Amino acid sequence: MRLLVLAVLCILSTAATASPHPHPLDPLSATELTAVREAVLSSPLVPARPLHFHYVGIDEPEKPEVLSCTYGTSTSSSILPRRALAIARAGGQSHELIIDITNSSAPSIISHAIHHGPGFPMITPDEQSAAMALPPKYSPFVESVWRRGLNVSDVYCGVLSRGWFGSSQPSYGGGRVAKMQCVVGGDGETANLYARPLVGVTLVVNLDRMAIVGYNDRVVYPVPKAEGTDYRADKVGPPYTGPATVPGVVVQPEGRGFHIDGHTVRWANWEFHLGFDMRAGMVISLASVHDADAGKRRRVLYRGFVSEIFVPYMDPDEEWYFHTFVDAGDFGLGVSASPLQRVGDMPKRQYDYGKPVKADDVICVFERYAGDIAWRHTSAALLITEVRPDVTLVARMVVTVGNYDYILDWEFKTSGSIKIVVSLTGILEMKASWYTHVDEMKQDAHGTLVAENTVAVFHDHFVTYHLDLDIDGTNNSFIKNTMVQKRNTGDPATGGARTPRKSYWTVRRDVAETESDGRVDVNGVPPADLLFVNPSKKSKTGYEVGYRLIPGGATAASLLADDDYPQRRASYTKKQVWVTPYNRSEKWAPGLYAEQSTGDDNLEAWSKRNRRIKDEDIVLWYTLGLHHIPYLEDFPVMPTLSGSFELRPSNFFENNPLIRTKPPSNFNNLNCSCGAASM
Amino acid sequence: MRLLVLAVLCILSTAATASPHPHPLDPLSATELTAVREAVLSSPLVPARPLHFHYVGIDEPEKPEVLSCTYGTSTSSSILPRRALAIARAGGQSHELIIDITNSSAPSIISHAIHHGPGFPMITPDEQSAAMALPPKYSPFVESVWRRGLNVSDVYCGVLSRGWFGSSQPSYGGGRVAKMQCVVGGDGETANLYARPLVGVTLVVNLDRMAIVGYNDRVVYPVPKAEGTDYRADKVGPPYTGPATVPGVVVQPEGRGFHIDGHTVRWANWEFHLGFDMRAGMVISLASVHDADAGKRRRVLYRGFVSEIFVPYMDPDEEWYFHTFVDAGDFGLGVSASPLQRVGDMPKRQYDYGKPVKADDVICVFERYAGDIAWRHTSAALLITEVRPDVTLVARMVVTVGNYDYILDWEFKTSGSIKIVVSLTGILEMKASWYTHVDEMKQDAHGTLVAENTVAVFHDHFVTYHLDLDIDGTNNSFIKNTMVQKRNTGDPATGGARTPRKSYWTVRRDVAETESDGRVDVNGVPPADLLFVNPSKKSKTGYEVGYRLIPGGATAASLLADDDYPQRRASYTKKQVWVTPYNRSEKWAPGLYAEQSTGDDNLEAWSKRNRRIKDEDIVLWYTLGLHHIPYLEDFPVMPTLSGSFELRPSNFFENNPLIRTKPPSNFNNLNCSCGAASM
Repeated sequence: MRLLVLAVLCILSTAATASPHPHPLDPLSATELTAVREAVLSSPLVPARPLHFHYVGIDEPEKPEVLSCTYGTSTSSSILPRRALAIARAGGQSHELIIDITNSSAPSIISHAIHHGPGFPMITPDEQSAAMALPPKYSPFVESVWRRGLNVSDVYCGVLSRGWFGSSQPSYGGGRVAKMQCVVGGDGETANLYARPLVGVTLVVNLDRMAIVGYNDRVVYPVPKAEGTDYRADKVGPPYTGPATVPGVVVQPEGRGFHIDGHTVRWANWEFHLGFDMRAGMVISLASVHDADAGKRRRVLYRGFVSEIFVPYMDPDEEWYFHTFVDAGDFGLGVSASPLQRVGDMPKRQYDYGKPVKADDVICVFERYAGDIAWRHTSAALLITEVRPDVTLVARMVVTVGNYDYILDWEFKTSGSIKIVVSLTGILEMKASWYTHVDEMKQDAHGTLVAENTVAVFHDHFVTYHLDLDIDGTNNSFIKNTMVQKRNTGDPATGGARTPRKSYWTVRRDVAETESDGRVDVNGVPPADLLFVNPSKKSKTGYEVGYRLIPGGATAASLLADDDYPQRRASYTKKQVWVTPYNRSEKWAPGLYAEQSTGDDNLEAWSKRNRRIKDEDIVLWYTLGLHHIPYLEDFPVMPTLSGSFELRPSNFFENNPLIRTKPPSNFNNLNCSCGAASM
Repeated sequence: MRLLVLAVLCILSTAATASPHPHPLDPLSATELTAVREAVLSSPLVPARPLHFHYVGIDEPEKPEVLSCTYGTSTSSSILPRRALAIARAGGQSHELIIDITNSSAPSIISHAIHHGPGFPMITPDEQSAAMALPPKYSPFVESVWRRGLNVSDVYCGVLSRGWFGSSQPSYGGGRVAKMQCVVGGDGETANLYARPLVGVTLVVNLDRMAIVGYNDRVVYPVPKAEGTDYRADKVGPPYTGPATVPGVVVQPEGRGFHIDGHTVRWANWEFHLGFDMRAGMVISLASVHDADAGKRRRVLYRGFVSEIFVPYMDPDEEWYFHTFVDAGDFGLGVSASPLQRVGDMPKRQYDYGKPVKADDVICVFERYAGDIAWRHTSAALLITEVRPDVTLVARMVVTVGNYDYILDWEFKTSGSIKIVVSLTGILEMKASWYTHVDEMKQDAHGTLVAENTVAVFHDHFVTYHLDLDIDGTNNSFIKNTMVQKRNTGDPATGGARTPRKSYWTVRRDVAETESDGRVDVNGVPPADLLFVNPSKKSKTGYEVGYRLIPGGATAASLLADDDYPQRRASYTKKQVWVTPYNRSEKWAPGLYAEQSTGDDNLEAWSKRNRRIKDEDIVLWYTLGLHHIPYLEDFPVMPTLSGSFELRPSNFFENNPLIRTKPPSNFNNLNCSCGAASM
């Protein structure tokens, strides 16, 4: 199978040409990153050394400025200041710096603050690499390995964020403490680094001091065998005994249909800015759709990105209880963006944030010809069939956070819909055990025995999207159109009629006034259509223009107890929907400093202020959730499992925007007409 | 856009070659249909005339016989008797006949019964055509049309099933009584036959007598204007102002990957029989998947088809209260299968069931290259990325039941999953009104004002699938793996541990004993994985082999009152999942005689017998449901809206069946690697 996939982002080339007028939302160029780094390192504000950068990204201009620059007539982007936000650790403190890089050859630090609250910035790949080198030099660990009859060189240890468990957890001196757990992976027997865990051994590392500060060799389990765990093509075959399909190639005889200008993508009736952030990965901004009838481009989404992926495991054991990752906040989705090429460009992963590094191939844009139908109708009476095929544009990022691979798609449809798809694949987290058969499992094993001595642990995935919808303008309201059962009263004055019908449903329209109205369980009863509308823009018939949220499966909510520590940090995962007023600082659902965060600065905490959200600039937070009981098929690498949701125009257009779409000239030759039946 | 779509079914050619050994599940050939017709018409058992056929289909052999014939070694299909079921109306009665056509030149009727219970067989297109001719000759109707200043020749009237409302509804002499309502559609102003209703006028027709037996001209509303309602390419343009995409063609350089042998489709690891039925449309039978590790083909699905589509509208008004269609039972999905070509082959739809008619192009099979990923993993530590693209096989039927078009897809995946997708498009049912702006709507209008004088009425769609899963054998059990929150007791004997973790979830496994355990609200709390397992087949580690149901959105349940008439008929729509023991006669969720049915012989009635379903031959009934509040975009033809569910192997294979799949040779050139970012 081949896709016609075409280059989309050329951030480095943007940097190379050193455009004097970048789009205000363009990611930092290599030149700008270098300027940030040099400005911070040469500043007297942060004298302590070593200094490590944990986050560098654009400090975007105020939203009105960006909107004015993008849609206004008077202001040009060249006059907007260009700023970066850097978070650096030095002297045991988290420093927040804003650097003006409007003139990248003369950067200036315009603010500096030290974060004193709970939580820490992301753990960097550099730190992980440095920490990996510690265990082989740590004699208790070496003894543990020997005692198990293994070679130290065959054992890899990785860094795991340790979550937050209040004073119930040993502090190990406090600060940026993480855990390390190990696998047998260096013996070349398998490329599956999660299938052969060395369960029982946990190291504790202070990442600032880069030193082992705790050690526990609690219990010995057999190391699962390597056989059947590998996934590399040259190890699983030949012969390749799996199902075979024939290749298919999408050919576009007239060329591709989308255009890239800097970071702006234009395709069919859509236009959007495609950015990239170390923490969020792909960022969609300023998405607007052309309305042919109105003869203008209309705003839909100011900003959309994955704010967090919360992955709690369901095993209270010593080695597992803290596996409650906030992947974006702990490790960064942009930092974890695949594929291989990027890693191949950075041998040994020895790089320091702040230095520009080329991250190749992290976003992919392609047109999707899936055989779907945009709309159709057959009129048997009139002998008419009209069909319009559906072609869509997909922007894809793949994030591999350790074991799991997330395929994160934004699919733009000509109908005005945006479909967001999360597909999970990759490798399960597994624990070693003595079990070889389920009959031996007398106690709760907290997982599935996917292979001999191998339990894949129960867990959840909660992927939280930040969706700053601006439906046809900045100020929007959040509407719940609840479908409520009515008895037929027989009286037209109350909606009834003198007919035998006893019941029906009708729509109760509730406008959310404050944030407490903006928290919704999408599985709740009675059901409701959830809309973002612009109360100042109405259709000819008087409806507020809007977009609607349509969940497409994967609507799980967290089952953890409210008072449990991981749940306090990710308390927003009890509802799929939250609506907040736009606030420049509220980007990350578990808070800016999510690593070891306590939940005091998360989405729920903000929402509890109960601010007004009616006819305001508001933000939709949607959490796509899956409970994952592993099954045998998920081993050694799981087949993709997907969930999705759709943002669909609902009274946004005056009518179906595809009705005046030209039918494809060869559609009658499509020959999707292949059966004959007798009746 | 073009798809590589290839011919799949050649039922008529099968008939032409008059194979002496049809597959026992093959649809009736033209020869066989003629034999059935002649046998019934020449039989003294049903002397009354006229005699009309309402259903003719195969009376399939007993399941053990089919299984033995398909998978056994001793029996060959040639010795299975070949039988047809015919339902005919004659003398005001519904006759059920079984005709042996093993020798189609000497058919014999082997049973005859008269249906005395409530309900009637499907209304036929012939009857609809004949009824359409009645109103223009019915003088009160002609006067009503004149009074509105319209031409009779411009008005089309269609037949609507009238549902069942007990003694609350006038009987009009009882029997096969239907209603007729009318639209302005004959003036050539628009091809949209639902946009200009002549609301207020209702005719009642006795279909057996083919005579008008009731008439009501209750109220006059303006006829909505034609402008903006058409959807024909040559009427909406040029210019075509809708969004334009570039064409894409799927090319398969090595040819197509599936093979057809009679009605049997073989592709990758799948094999299934693709049948067709007047009522169900496409029928998937005997789907089995090859297990390369086990070196054998394993059974998954004995039979799958759409059993019913229940569409209740939410307006209690005189003209609307009875709009509570059971599309399959009232009109037939096979009969309603699009596209146009079939209609073009049958001008004026003048055909009588029982006579073979060629139904071209009603099922489409194609391989889908959508850019999806079957599985992938990147190991940053080992500098490895392995990706396997996903290619799937889609079997598609499009059913147009009057206004709505349903695109009904079965997507077979190499992972062993079957994904079933329902996509809704077509035209809304609309009522005329005086309203031109929502501000005028002081009372409940029961719909959305999609255009001036045009209200699209609130409604639901409940698409019920009959899924006779046979997971690796005939006898299966239904399992609910419920995820239940646990407090950490600190005691390993109860699954706890002495750690700061306070809570987790674990799995409570419930085996359904009887049918009452087989009714599930998939939105219920706590959540559960729902599996069909084979208790006599276990994995090496001891798990029962199984398949799991994964809803993908569209999980609405009916909101009608339990005591309301339409709800009593379709009472099964209050739960998405029902599990029943296999019973040859339980195919149609609202009962065999669904037209004007009372609910006494529906899925819920069967389930109430509370038969054993543990380790039995059991059937899954899944209802995909949508509540539909119309929006302006749904006018004049709605953009496709989809829901889906997946049947996914879960402990069926010993591990991921795709792990030993050969990577595509050109995959590294796929170039889904198109972005560069600086960090």
